[in-house]
Amino acid sequence: MTVETRFAQFESLSLENGTSLSPVCVAYQTYGVLNAARSNAILILHAFSGDAHAAGISAETGKPGWWDNTIGPGKAFDTEKYFVICSNVLGGCLGTTGPSSRNPETGCPYAMGFPVVTIGDMVRLQTKLVEHLGIERLLAVAGGSMGGMQALEWAVHYPERVVAAIPIATTARHSPQQIAFNEVGRQAIMADPDWNDGNYYGGRPPGRGLAIARMVGHITYMSDESMREKFGRRLREKEKFGFDFSVDFEVESYLRYRGSQFVNRFDANSYLYITKAEDYFDLTNGTGSLAGALGKVTARFLVISFSSDWLYPSYQSQEIVRVLRRGNHDVAYCDLQSNYGHDAFLVDVAEQSEVIRGFLASTYRERA
Amino acid sequence: MTVETRFAQFESLSLENGTSLSPVCVAYQTYGVLNAARSNAILILHAFSGDAHAAGISAETGKPGWWDNTIGPGKAFDTEKYFVICSNVLGGCLGTTGPSSRNPETGCPYAMGFPVVTIGDMVRLQTKLVEHLGIERLLAVAGGSMGGMQALEWAVHYPERVVAAIPIATTARHSPQQIAFNEVGRQAIMADPDWNDGNYYGGRPPGRGLAIARMVGHITYMSDESMREKFGRRLREKEKFGFDFSVDFEVESYLRYRGSQFVNRFDANSYLYITKAEDYFDLTNGTGSLAGALGKVTARFLVISFSSDWLYPSYQSQEIVRVLRRGNHDVAYCDLQSNYGHDAFLVDVAEQSEVIRGFLASTYRERA
Repeated sequence: MTVETRFAQFESLSLENGTSLSPVCVAYQTYGVLNAARSNAILILHAFSGDAHAAGISAETGKPGWWDNTIGPGKAFDTEKYFVICSNVLGGCLGTTGPSSRNPETGCPYAMGFPVVTIGDMVRLQTKLVEHLGIERLLAVAGGSMGGMQALEWAVHYPERVVAAIPIATTARHSPQQIAFNEVGRQAIMADPDWNDGNYYGGRPPGRGLAIARMVGHITYMSDESMREKFGRRLREKEKFGFDFSVDFEVESYLRYRGSQFVNRFDANSYLYITKAEDYFDLTNGTGSLAGALGKVTARFLVISFSSDWLYPSYQSQEIVRVLRRGNHDVAYCDLQSNYGHDAFLVDVAEQSEVIRGFLASTYRERA
Repeated sequence: MTVETRFAQFESLSLENGTSLSPVCVAYQTYGVLNAARSNAILILHAFSGDAHAAGISAETGKPGWWDNTIGPGKAFDTEKYFVICSNVLGGCLGTTGPSSRNPETGCPYAMGFPVVTIGDMVRLQTKLVEHLGIERLLAVAGGSMGGMQALEWAVHYPERVVAAIPIATTARHSPQQIAFNEVGRQAIMADPDWNDGNYYGGRPPGRGLAIARMVGHITYMSDESMREKFGRRLREKEKFGFDFSVDFEVESYLRYRGSQFVNRFDANSYLYITKAEDYFDLTNGTGSLAGALGKVTARFLVISFSSDWLYPSYQSQEIVRVLRRGNHDVAYCDLQSNYGHDAFLVDVAEQSEVIRGFLASTYRERA
């Protein structure tokens, strides 16, 4: 299944900080066919570094989508039954308007002149895209990590437009530890002289800082156990410790490789804006009352967490589930056993797929 | 109790990589009085960024030692009973020979010309210091984190010189996750243009990279829970989210502060050398057989870990304990309940002190 990225443009988007952006462009892909009743649409929400290319083979790059093991014919999000949409987030660098986009007022990239955007702003842009596609109500919104935050935002702020929400490996608000890891990444980028206060477009991007940020990220996406299984203490291209500062351990080589790869496909300023949106996200809007926030939801929920995910630990999902249950909302919860840490929702999907498949089938049957 | 740092100099030290260093200087402090039988000496081994100033008030800085809550009259390491020694490690930057020391062959700092040193080399230098102080046999060797690695190294390689060993919050060898966090710190330093391949002495040191490295370190020293208790999502000097890139959360302010403070007292090249020594450390010497490594020990052991320490998780201590027990060695083990993460051995010391006090008393009574 070859897929193409499409683009929708909107005149203007109001932002939570009181300003607005205009115009705004959204990159998106769709898979499957919208039914006549327009009742089978599912919006997939990507994580921090994801993009609109969630499934199929990209016509542009020839590569499979980031959730191709989960979206497609006969898969968890079955494109023979559902019409699946995925768009790149606001503030990103993979087709949707972000800091690397041209500011029409100056003719130059926004850079740090881009307004600080929130998860709420990302979702508001998605509501425009969904309207643009002629869909009034989504059968489901689903995503992991930052995608899960967007799913929660949809369910809380647009209850009439969401039949079901599937927040995976996510949280209602970042803990200090999650903020701290993001902050280290931001500091690494801003410490790179090539960052130049964000004005590096057309010149050399802050690749060293961005690579460091990505290395920290990758450590937090894996679990202690999955790293031991994957790397052990195996040495790289040396029979014995060389006692020097070249790469000794395979885990070092892996991190450097992933760090350098990331620099080729991601914009450092987008890293700053998107991680800040994650850190600002607070479903309780600063009140601390999750019960208040979740009181108005009408969607049914499937909440999924993973036993070895220490970046978005299960207790954060369980807090959401507890509050939903207390409020007598329709909520199913699975804490799936996996060694893969936070990456599990992307790579260890067999059980997750079964759970999603069943949940969607009953939702479609009973509530579409 | 005011204490002064003293220095011992040795003509030469053989290193594990086959070369040698000469001369070598060691910074150390002592507390309490060596008894006539010279049987009450305890060597304290510091962690990654520690120094010789473990207890008392420094005559130089007026500050208390890093384990002043644990070493002193009536404390866990009771200086009314024991003669306590602490020295700065080889490769360090706080008095003992390291990369910032003058290379006598060139007249300039060693910088990256300093040989790669190991935990074994650090301990070999400590054996010289102990001999220099006229001590044949230590009542105990004790330390947390990298200090625990040195305690293990002493017990395995100098069994005739160690009556008891107290490795705390440590491991027989780094896991890929531990190596990965160290590697991120090293990469952050080496990515800083001011690092200049290590040749920054007399110029501007790579402070931005070193601060990033330290920020990562601090996250790993705390626990998710202790960070929530300490910081929550409290905002810094703002009534509301400013939606910008200044400091928003207290945890960000704390990390930036700790990062910048560290730059004033620590040498970036020492960071590289000491973290590499940690990563190379493997008590099994590459054989993977901990039973083989620990077979020759004669010391009795007190092994301590902390329930919320995810950087040096309890399973790593338990692996050591299991092998010692199977070998019918004398070993006591405590997994202490604490919310403080890896920092617990430095800050949450009430229960740890009781356990150490009792263990030392019986060791002194029965085996000194």
